[in-house]
Amino acid sequence: MTSPVTVLTEPECWDLLRDQELGRLAFRHGEGLQILPINYAVAGEHIVFRTADGTKFSDLMDDADVAFEVDSSSHELAESVVCRGVVVELHGEQALMTDQLRLRPWVATRKTHVMAIRVSEISGRRFHLTKPWEHMLPD
Amino acid sequence: MTSPVTVLTEPECWDLLRDQELGRLAFRHGEGLQILPINYAVAGEHIVFRTADGTKFSDLMDDADVAFEVDSSSHELAESVVCRGVVVELHGEQALMTDQLRLRPWVATRKTHVMAIRVSEISGRRFHLTKPWEHMLPD
Repeated sequence: MTSPVTVLTEPECWDLLRDQELGRLAFRHGEGLQILPINYAVAGEHIVFRTADGTKFSDLMDDADVAFEVDSSSHELAESVVCRGVVVELHGEQALMTDQLRLRPWVATRKTHVMAIRVSEISGRRFHLTKPWEHMLPD
Repeated sequence: MTSPVTVLTEPECWDLLRDQELGRLAFRHGEGLQILPINYAVAGEHIVFRTADGTKFSDLMDDADVAFEVDSSSHELAESVVCRGVVVELHGEQALMTDQLRLRPWVATRKTHVMAIRVSEISGRRFHLTKPWEHMLPD
């Protein structure tokens, strides 16, 4: 039997990141942790997103060390990619350049800061789903 | 115009958690953060999941403070719930009781530890999606 979990190559990880546009960002919030969904785009080896002034922005200014996760699943396969890195705010031309990215807001709220995760670690897994309990469900 | 973001009530948050079975767990990993997808079930006000011996288990034993996120989205609406709390390992009868939960493994790997997040904070948001760029796509 082949293993139900295989490791994605780094190019496969970036492919998954480029295919999706909703991920989850984990960061420190005071003494604890926070995790929030974000819309993002990939630019080179950076994850770019926008945020408003607010708790998330000030938490990231206090501690820029983050983890970021994207996943996708179908009936038989699930894939998940996790990145770790540091968030920086982009300004001037760098921030303007992100207008060329596929960074599409899902929600009509004002987000004034353009942020980028400088990815230092990336890894991914492919899960071959068995869901054995599905065979126990009535038709 | 109504706000594109509304706050979920606590019962609505628990409803979303009970409706889903895949979430993302954020925890401390050494000096950094980690975030991984997990299959879970809800029991009372606890989030229950299984894990194998390994890095995740030892990270959680080192620092039990976690955040947990579940989301769902359709064409027009997205919802996201975030919990914060502390992870404990369940033993004996408590662990056996989880066999009655809808804690269905998606992947056929051996997971010997039954863990529960004792939720101390829960909050959720409903996003009314506009995706204005969709109107700019060719038919």
